[in-house]
Amino acid sequence: MKYNAKVYVSLKKGYSDPEGETAANALRGLGYTVDDVRASKAYEVSFQAEDRETAEAVLDEMCRRLLTNPTKDDYSFEIREV
Amino acid sequence: MKYNAKVYVSLKKGYSDPEGETAANALRGLGYTVDDVRASKAYEVSFQAEDRETAEAVLDEMCRRLLTNPTKDDYSFEIREV
Repeated sequence: MKYNAKVYVSLKKGYSDPEGETAANALRGLGYTVDDVRASKAYEVSFQAEDRETAEAVLDEMCRRLLTNPTKDDYSFEIREV
Repeated sequence: MKYNAKVYVSLKKGYSDPEGETAANALRGLGYTVDDVRASKAYEVSFQAEDRETAEAVLDEMCRRLLTNPTKDDYSFEIREV
């Protein structure tokens, strides 16, 4: 089976996010009423797995081994079959 | 009203994505059956607007003016009231 996944990687709470802060300040400078901006990364991964359960387990492993740094990142993903 | 939005920014088709290709190759090297990886950016934006319609219009404007480069990026967003 083929699966398509979106993986969202954001910094854990407590880590400062200068890119997000800069974007928030720039948006305020343009006149928008912005409270907060957090910048994060996203990956779209197309991969193969036997079934949905395996796909979730495999993707979680990919996240922990390569796509994220579990010490400083939070991540979440959505998988759909294609 | 306060709104929370997730904005996803990815390169348009046709633009090469060396970060995604590198991640895909690294995952293959680790033994995963990966077809493709596209790297993209995401922003979580907390902002204020009068109603949902205004919120969508304002956020779309923020995307076009600052968060994305409409020449080379595709973007999409999800808004929820908080």
